[in-house]
Amino acid sequence: MIKVSLIGKGKVSQHLNNVFDKTNTISVVEVLSSRGDLISKINQNNNAPQVDIYIIAVSDDAIHAVATQLAQTKSLVVHTSGSVSIQMLPEGIRRGVFYPLQSFSENCSIDFKEIPLCIEAEKQEDLNLLNNLAALITNSVFEISSKQRKSLHLAAVFVNNFTNHLYQIGGNICKQQNIPFSILSPLISETARKVENMSPEKAQTGPAIRNDTKTIEAQINQLENENYKKIYRILTDSISKKHEEKL
Amino acid sequence: MIKVSLIGKGKVSQHLNNVFDKTNTISVVEVLSSRGDLISKINQNNNAPQVDIYIIAVSDDAIHAVATQLAQTKSLVVHTSGSVSIQMLPEGIRRGVFYPLQSFSENCSIDFKEIPLCIEAEKQEDLNLLNNLAALITNSVFEISSKQRKSLHLAAVFVNNFTNHLYQIGGNICKQQNIPFSILSPLISETARKVENMSPEKAQTGPAIRNDTKTIEAQINQLENENYKKIYRILTDSISKKHEEKL
Repeated sequence: MIKVSLIGKGKVSQHLNNVFDKTNTISVVEVLSSRGDLISKINQNNNAPQVDIYIIAVSDDAIHAVATQLAQTKSLVVHTSGSVSIQMLPEGIRRGVFYPLQSFSENCSIDFKEIPLCIEAEKQEDLNLLNNLAALITNSVFEISSKQRKSLHLAAVFVNNFTNHLYQIGGNICKQQNIPFSILSPLISETARKVENMSPEKAQTGPAIRNDTKTIEAQINQLENENYKKIYRILTDSISKKHEEKL
Repeated sequence: MIKVSLIGKGKVSQHLNNVFDKTNTISVVEVLSSRGDLISKINQNNNAPQVDIYIIAVSDDAIHAVATQLAQTKSLVVHTSGSVSIQMLPEGIRRGVFYPLQSFSENCSIDFKEIPLCIEAEKQEDLNLLNNLAALITNSVFEISSKQRKSLHLAAVFVNNFTNHLYQIGGNICKQQNIPFSILSPLISETARKVENMSPEKAQTGPAIRNDTKTIEAQINQLENENYKKIYRILTDSISKKHEEKL
């Protein structure tokens, strides 16, 4: 049995709590609010068994302040953030990271089994503990350093945040012509599905990769929104390899 | 039985041929290459039964030239392009459009049942015929005008071509840190899946929508590729609503 204390009551904490609850081998001893005096809350829980892992699932900016209050603990302390280094946790404690690479929404259940869990720790025994914890909820565990995680989080901004915004623009273009957004659904799914078996380079289609300047110019003229025109141009240029593919 | 002649041997033609073949009610009488003298090819097929519909599945630029050769036919003549107007087919014939809204790849089978088929015709009887043909292969038939179709095609460029390019950028960012592209797969799928039940506006997460300028600046600095920096900035600006949402 792995005993866990969850700190924070946001989406990540809720999702972890739900999936931990479904196992017989992870016990969520407490879910603490990150606000106020954490130490006294933990001390009030004297009757609770000592936890193996504190999981700090709070906003990036709050991680340091919360973790500082745990500077005396002998348990493993991890945060769940994609962009915060392990170094943000106090020196001298057993520290680590437990980052699920997924975009969580509130009223949206999720199958954890396929979610990549990115783990990091300084000591092998802590890494083993995180690996055991992760393997109880997902089939996909990766040992990822803080530096790698920072890049992964940035990549996630492109494939999730920015992609979703392109869906929004597509929807707006349809709306102008009284076409329902749902007509785009199969294309959106297929675009995502395709890169499961094929690199995005190979999957690329459309006027930009064909250098079909006639269609490109016609489509830019068709857009009235200056912002959409700019986005169209810059992504078209990027696809047609006018820029070096260097990070 | 609907008798069809397919003109063109590209991806769309191949996919239509495959899916028509699976029905007992659509007969593909011939598949003609669009190159050379189409009329003589059709005349060589004198023994073939007369077709109900000629489906011109060739590149946009070739549609007009191919269709001109069919100026004498009494059958319905349609093209399959998202961006070409019905007017590009010769006046005086029964003309229409049969546009499957999907991105087809060569060695990639596809389930047609969910693909939206956008049909257009000038006469009600031709619209009925196209509707019958479409309903035999998909559950999703839309009557879409040339003007609407042009917008739909543009929306598809955003949600397919541009989205796929963002996958490529995400993959390149991972590659720099020796992280496999496949780690992004569940996030890519979930991002697509989410907008089946939720508008992209509601599904939007990340630093841009939170106006988290600290993370935004850090991520821009993290990118070394000037092109990626520009894409990051313009999409972040767009998400944070610095621009009017006007087409």
